[in-house]
Amino acid sequence: MLKKCDLTEKIDQKTFDEKTGPLQAHLGQLQRQLHAEKIPVIILIEGWNAAGISLTVKELIRSFDPRGIELSTIGSPTDAEQHRPLLWRFWNRIPPKGGIAIFDRSWYSRALAETTRHPAWEKRVDTAIQSINRFERQLADDNTIIVKIFLHISKKEQEKRFIDRETNPLTSWMVTPEDWDFHGEYETYFPLIDSFLRRTSTPGAPWTVIGADDTRYAILTAYKTVIAALEKRKTGRDGISGKEHATYTPDLVPAKRHEEKPARLDKETYEKRLAAAQLMLGDMQSILFKRNIPLIIIFEGRDAAGKGGTIMRLTRDLNPRGYRVTPVGGPNEFEKDHHYLWRFIRKYPRQGHTTIYDRSWYGRVLVERVEGFCTRAEWKRAYSEINEVEEEFRSWGGGILKFWLEVSPEEQLKRFQGREKDPSKQWKITEEDWRNREKWDQYSEAIDEMFEKTSTKNAPWIVINSDDKWNARIKTVETVCEYAERLLQVRYQHYS
Amino acid sequence: MLKKCDLTEKIDQKTFDEKTGPLQAHLGQLQRQLHAEKIPVIILIEGWNAAGISLTVKELIRSFDPRGIELSTIGSPTDAEQHRPLLWRFWNRIPPKGGIAIFDRSWYSRALAETTRHPAWEKRVDTAIQSINRFERQLADDNTIIVKIFLHISKKEQEKRFIDRETNPLTSWMVTPEDWDFHGEYETYFPLIDSFLRRTSTPGAPWTVIGADDTRYAILTAYKTVIAALEKRKTGRDGISGKEHATYTPDLVPAKRHEEKPARLDKETYEKRLAAAQLMLGDMQSILFKRNIPLIIIFEGRDAAGKGGTIMRLTRDLNPRGYRVTPVGGPNEFEKDHHYLWRFIRKYPRQGHTTIYDRSWYGRVLVERVEGFCTRAEWKRAYSEINEVEEEFRSWGGGILKFWLEVSPEEQLKRFQGREKDPSKQWKITEEDWRNREKWDQYSEAIDEMFEKTSTKNAPWIVINSDDKWNARIKTVETVCEYAERLLQVRYQHYS
Repeated sequence: MLKKCDLTEKIDQKTFDEKTGPLQAHLGQLQRQLHAEKIPVIILIEGWNAAGISLTVKELIRSFDPRGIELSTIGSPTDAEQHRPLLWRFWNRIPPKGGIAIFDRSWYSRALAETTRHPAWEKRVDTAIQSINRFERQLADDNTIIVKIFLHISKKEQEKRFIDRETNPLTSWMVTPEDWDFHGEYETYFPLIDSFLRRTSTPGAPWTVIGADDTRYAILTAYKTVIAALEKRKTGRDGISGKEHATYTPDLVPAKRHEEKPARLDKETYEKRLAAAQLMLGDMQSILFKRNIPLIIIFEGRDAAGKGGTIMRLTRDLNPRGYRVTPVGGPNEFEKDHHYLWRFIRKYPRQGHTTIYDRSWYGRVLVERVEGFCTRAEWKRAYSEINEVEEEFRSWGGGILKFWLEVSPEEQLKRFQGREKDPSKQWKITEEDWRNREKWDQYSEAIDEMFEKTSTKNAPWIVINSDDKWNARIKTVETVCEYAERLLQVRYQHYS
Repeated sequence: MLKKCDLTEKIDQKTFDEKTGPLQAHLGQLQRQLHAEKIPVIILIEGWNAAGISLTVKELIRSFDPRGIELSTIGSPTDAEQHRPLLWRFWNRIPPKGGIAIFDRSWYSRALAETTRHPAWEKRVDTAIQSINRFERQLADDNTIIVKIFLHISKKEQEKRFIDRETNPLTSWMVTPEDWDFHGEYETYFPLIDSFLRRTSTPGAPWTVIGADDTRYAILTAYKTVIAALEKRKTGRDGISGKEHATYTPDLVPAKRHEEKPARLDKETYEKRLAAAQLMLGDMQSILFKRNIPLIIIFEGRDAAGKGGTIMRLTRDLNPRGYRVTPVGGPNEFEKDHHYLWRFIRKYPRQGHTTIYDRSWYGRVLVERVEGFCTRAEWKRAYSEINEVEEEFRSWGGGILKFWLEVSPEEQLKRFQGREKDPSKQWKITEEDWRNREKWDQYSEAIDEMFEKTSTKNAPWIVINSDDKWNARIKTVETVCEYAERLLQVRYQHYS
């Protein structure tokens, strides 16, 4: 894509001054329309060093009402970002519905910087491109307009700009020895960047390469590119849909709602086995921490199946510095304005830490499906979206455990009634619980389809028969111990 | 406070097991009550290394519904935190109304670590204590319950625990050479910590020192301390109010709403002077960046006074990587659930950067006062609260500029009518603007009192007569240039 780019185009100052005004007004108007239609927009500007990225960003943002934009300048990752998957920091910054997120450099610069340092860089580039394409496709499927601009300059022009900057005391600090190193490798990076652009130019997120040896030409063309992309989408859905893209097809393993009910335990055995497993898990946590292995534990289940109590037992001997319980209710207004995965990915554990989700992204295919909070197309698409993010997390080196706590309708009724009678537990039972109970079969259907489509080899569902709380707790804690042990045996493949 | 602490108290396992259950149930119940009453709670645990902080935290959080708590483990600051005032990261983590924020170490550990490294550490300790007391008093005045626990152990006990940890392969990594250094200095730090505790034990945020040589005793006492604090507040307001505390009394400088109207400029002069000032400001930004000086620029003013247009001119030649415009509307639900300063402090610039607030915390004493969105006591208190945070920011080394854009009622009417007629500007004018206009005199009164009480020597109000837009823009941009120049002349006193 770089080779075909014309670097000789020029615009004189007069033409530039005449043309920018109307373009800016047009962009401002588009912003208001897309805001009203609640369409999220991502505009990212990439390019060679000194290609004029920040100048172009500066011009573009002049057109917008600052109330609706968020500008991110992407430099080296923070400590929190460094210990999470590459795309985590960008998931955190996706725009809300009707908002515009502008990126001065983006996941592309980061992916290039972080993959090319490694001996096995070619494989890492492949993985990064796959992750990026999935990320962008998921956002595009959620109606996000993604505009990607690469500012291309010649090696000669880059040299000239570095020297100009170095001879000005106000800008000399901007040019680092690394910049010159990178400049010396211009020819090495040329085909690499070219292939990166080619392989990530997708229907939902195409690249536009702009010749930027002439800054005025680059800026005007950037205006036009953004306007064209926003206009195009305004005229209606772009034909982008989950179906058109190859989706990830994982190996599946069966999971069944009806697990055999284990034999009842006496109190002494229960307490002994539980305490032993808890202590062991505390030690496991230390080792996972030392080995930098992150862990996600998801709890889903019927109302009153005992998720809260089980989580309490699970964390009994864990060091609170290393884990976090994320209780999930209905999304608030702010969360509703984002992609449904956003609020879960934000809570990813850092390396060596554990996040326990008390309900999770599976809400999309359970409560949101049954209650009609999302469209059929949305929850249908969610199975492969969730499989993808789980696979991303696994291949980055993390572990995932997914527990389904099942109770029988009879046992649930008993517990509901028990809660209503006990004044200290009445707060736990609401009208909604009773309403959900009436939809038992609809939920069963949703659960079965969830098992069928998301019980993958790398992140299988574990069903816990929770009619007997003691057995349920012991099985859960022991399962986490065994899983941690298996994780530690596998050679840890560090990705980020 | 440390010397009086009894380190010989002991509790046997049986008593401990019997007592914890009821205490936990009690705490859980208190959490639900305080949640219903929308009272925010901060519980912070400090102490010597190996005093059992994380163990105590672990026990305490078992009592709570995880949905209402947020646990923060405070280690070294991140890059973003390091380049902002000490308390910034803690302002970010204050609990919402009805929520509980638990701190495993806190601003105290950080203040101790960061002040004692400097040659002028005694002065820095004084400053830190003053900042902390202000911070806690502001939160207490906003109805926050603050429970502060210090776990005290003897030097001998600390040594024993370090050795125990070192001889266990699962915990040996926890003991660092710095821990041993610090252990060697136990006697040096003893009086320092003691004085820190004494000087920060205030009516709204008292310390409880707990002897922790016996872990069971420490945990039980921590339970009781927290319960007592929450119970006490439950029985009604604690008598804490802004009046009882000495508040900051700054030097004031006069500011007047009626600035003289300057002579009208011809177009050529306007364009030339503006362009020159903009270019100069771009250079100033580079120098501020190099010198690591952060800048806050606040814009307040009448509706249609031209804030947006002025900000656009101000940022014309600024590098977007170094500044951010923060447009402020009414708070959303999430923001309403926090202290009113929270959403503004979150947007503080990092060192070398600039935050431009398009409306600001002064909303408290303007729109919130006039429209009755807060109580009289709240906006009355806000003057000194705002003076305090501005003074904190200034003494940390930052600059603050506060512009008031004033228009005459006649000019405002003309602009409103102009907006209504121009289809491309109709979105800018709403019913609310007309309603505000009817309250012109009420706003004038609020503005005058704001000038009178918050135009401080270190952060004076600058009134811009904005009936003439050209003059207003030039005066604003030139004022920022001059201010930046003055900032650069003052020897930069780095605090954090």
